[in-house]
Amino acid sequence: MIDKKIFKCLRGDESEIALVQEGLKIDIRISKIYEALFTLEEMREVFRHALPAGLDDSEEERIDEGLKRLERILDEIRQQKGNRLRYVSDKIELRTREEEFINIDPIQAGGRLTLDARKALIAYGDGYSVCDNCLKPFRLDKIKKPPIDRFHDELAAFLGMDEARVVPGARRGFQAVVSSLVERGDPVLLTSLSHYTEFLAVEESGGVVREVMADENNIITADRIAERIEEIERKDGKKPVLMILDHFDYQFGNEHDVYGAGRIAKEYDIPFLYNGAYTVGIMPVDGKKIGADFVVGSGHKSMASSAPSGVLAVREEWVDKIFRTTDIRGDLTGRKFGVKEVEMLGCTLMGAPLLTMMASFPHVKERVKRWDEEVRRSNRFIETFLKIKGNRVLSEMPRKHTLTRVDTSASFDEVAKTHKKRGYFLTSELKKRGITGVFEGATREWKFNTYGLTDREVEYLGSAFIDIAKKYGIEVEA
Amino acid sequence: MIDKKIFKCLRGDESEIALVQEGLKIDIRISKIYEALFTLEEMREVFRHALPAGLDDSEEERIDEGLKRLERILDEIRQQKGNRLRYVSDKIELRTREEEFINIDPIQAGGRLTLDARKALIAYGDGYSVCDNCLKPFRLDKIKKPPIDRFHDELAAFLGMDEARVVPGARRGFQAVVSSLVERGDPVLLTSLSHYTEFLAVEESGGVVREVMADENNIITADRIAERIEEIERKDGKKPVLMILDHFDYQFGNEHDVYGAGRIAKEYDIPFLYNGAYTVGIMPVDGKKIGADFVVGSGHKSMASSAPSGVLAVREEWVDKIFRTTDIRGDLTGRKFGVKEVEMLGCTLMGAPLLTMMASFPHVKERVKRWDEEVRRSNRFIETFLKIKGNRVLSEMPRKHTLTRVDTSASFDEVAKTHKKRGYFLTSELKKRGITGVFEGATREWKFNTYGLTDREVEYLGSAFIDIAKKYGIEVEA
Repeated sequence: MIDKKIFKCLRGDESEIALVQEGLKIDIRISKIYEALFTLEEMREVFRHALPAGLDDSEEERIDEGLKRLERILDEIRQQKGNRLRYVSDKIELRTREEEFINIDPIQAGGRLTLDARKALIAYGDGYSVCDNCLKPFRLDKIKKPPIDRFHDELAAFLGMDEARVVPGARRGFQAVVSSLVERGDPVLLTSLSHYTEFLAVEESGGVVREVMADENNIITADRIAERIEEIERKDGKKPVLMILDHFDYQFGNEHDVYGAGRIAKEYDIPFLYNGAYTVGIMPVDGKKIGADFVVGSGHKSMASSAPSGVLAVREEWVDKIFRTTDIRGDLTGRKFGVKEVEMLGCTLMGAPLLTMMASFPHVKERVKRWDEEVRRSNRFIETFLKIKGNRVLSEMPRKHTLTRVDTSASFDEVAKTHKKRGYFLTSELKKRGITGVFEGATREWKFNTYGLTDREVEYLGSAFIDIAKKYGIEVEA
Repeated sequence: MIDKKIFKCLRGDESEIALVQEGLKIDIRISKIYEALFTLEEMREVFRHALPAGLDDSEEERIDEGLKRLERILDEIRQQKGNRLRYVSDKIELRTREEEFINIDPIQAGGRLTLDARKALIAYGDGYSVCDNCLKPFRLDKIKKPPIDRFHDELAAFLGMDEARVVPGARRGFQAVVSSLVERGDPVLLTSLSHYTEFLAVEESGGVVREVMADENNIITADRIAERIEEIERKDGKKPVLMILDHFDYQFGNEHDVYGAGRIAKEYDIPFLYNGAYTVGIMPVDGKKIGADFVVGSGHKSMASSAPSGVLAVREEWVDKIFRTTDIRGDLTGRKFGVKEVEMLGCTLMGAPLLTMMASFPHVKERVKRWDEEVRRSNRFIETFLKIKGNRVLSEMPRKHTLTRVDTSASFDEVAKTHKKRGYFLTSELKKRGITGVFEGATREWKFNTYGLTDREVEYLGSAFIDIAKKYGIEVEA
């Protein structure tokens, strides 16, 4: 057992002191792996300033020192000992959330990097790293090495669409479509469960939001969409110029009738943007089958990529509108700017985040095929979770997604009322058990996401909740 | 000497075969450092799927295997032997440009990551990695851990402005300002040397571009700006609603009269956006002293950060306009979205690129103080370069920047005319000497950037050009 004071001095994190107190030891090897990674980066730095002719004596010495330090670190890993590294650099703490905990954060699950993505990040971190071989016509999606051009083709095919572009986040995909289609005062159809970034995109364009209300089960139905369109046409004097529907919303993770929406969109001749922030990259999405004109996905939410990243895919008939190339010219010089696309502002996602998308992509293509298993595990966890008396699920049941909203007002919140840590007792108890991602202090309504967890992790997670309930005398069904 | 065929099989890169032929050996340790980094990532991956309770036997075995592999790699580093790693992952090649070469690419110099930025990238690669401690009011620039809030304050102070936001690239900074100020048909003052992304931002807004022509020395002067504003007012019936001036342009790296422009902007009461893509992060910039209303910088161009990243800083009086918070609400639900900023689309630069900006920032703050040395080295290289008969500098002289445009039509292009590799002979000869970044095949007009090179690298670079000139019988001044 490490002395509490020493531990605090080394790390200063109360929750981990608790971990040590509970006997759930943080594995020192995680910190040591970081130390070794950083030492190798220091050695790499030597080569970055060396002459091509070779290292000089002092540089050779630094490499030697690096090797020696690595040897010591490998020894510490073998012996599972040594001090913990606290900082990446001045003021920036080491991040070990994914290594030390089971993370059920509602938005982080699908954006964890794959091993290949982390390797790509190491290799392609420098600013304009993907531009080494940028040749005519000088546009990101035309670069062949690394194979960015092919990746774009594969992305479009993956989404069942005709053309795709990477963008710095799904929100930038919404912005590009809205900016192309919506004029001041135009009605845009969103829903009562739409993500705020859709609202902001409409606000920036000067458009007017018209919501479709979810039904009593918090589902957006095709009937309601059709009714609302007719109402808007009656009241505003014109149909919405665009409709945006989240396949699964961020509040409940409920599935909305995107196929029905696709049908309605065609019937009323309204362009349809499918928001796949919670689907593209974790479950199969076929834009044309859905009847979408535009498909937007998020790299950092669901495609195992670094932020900010995302994809905007469109059907053939929209390519000239959304991906229109520049038409402007210098009024005196007559300068023109070739094939640069206006809404993309030229190149969009040079560098590191794009490479993480590309490196993760083969794995993403495979993992969407296993979506059923993810949903099964989600339901399996919920089943355990509901054994705790008072726990309720606010999302649709059975779950069709791994993101779920729950209400523990009648269970954990009852404990919080008299606990000295108040609502923080729950997150604290979870952390002691190596679980993180629940909003700090939340004991009433909160969300979690089991995406990417294995069977044994889901089982562990369920046991942890049962264990906490029992510890505080909450009744648990056998 | 490695056999040519084997080398080609291992790496497949003609230019490097040439390197080996010339006896300039690529240091195998660079590739081995990558192998070790990747092996550590594989070990890290084990912990990412382990239960908090600890590793099981098969996981322990994988850690052991990793340790053994690392031992072998360290041995290979010591003995400088072993095979070269070619790929990061399927289809994505290893990138060793910065380690193996002196890179004088015109756009890559200022965006090379610092050691601390590379460490931060390793730790914060996962999608929403900076959102672990996102609390009310839920906005990126308010996050305290990692210290993103303080970074924003420091950024504003660093630029001599009042408020700053990070953005996914300088172009997104232009877009935010233009979208806030420019209505359809409004004239916007750019110059004959403006970057294309400024044109695209104006095009997206529906504005009209009006250029100021550079003078005979390719400099934008205050007089010309004033004249042009008066002409626009006469002809268009209104003044420009915005003027954008690049402090140093991307074509010549010439300095334009931003202080004069600041004066004119005030005199004519026109908002002034200072484009510091080639200054912010490499030389001191004081926005208020310049008289700028907005300062835009690029993380991946000049702040040692991963793409896409940048900064938009504004003066107090513009905060409410450019960083206006959302006003839109759901027409049925009445939903509102708090302090989210419209032009930022909420949060802008979550994750990896932001952390590289933050980790590099202390170094960036120091390096701008050494700008004079950078300029001195730039001029020192030019001096050597001009000893080669026929070489000309198209940028202003003496150089005030490290980015320079040259014309070698009367020297290297003469060689290219009869060389079997044509224009590629020059880049090939440079690569043999461990130098990269000159546009492949260019022997007439081309650009380079010496930013970040040490004295000895600049000396080596000069010698290499002299050496190539002599090899091909071009006259060289003693």
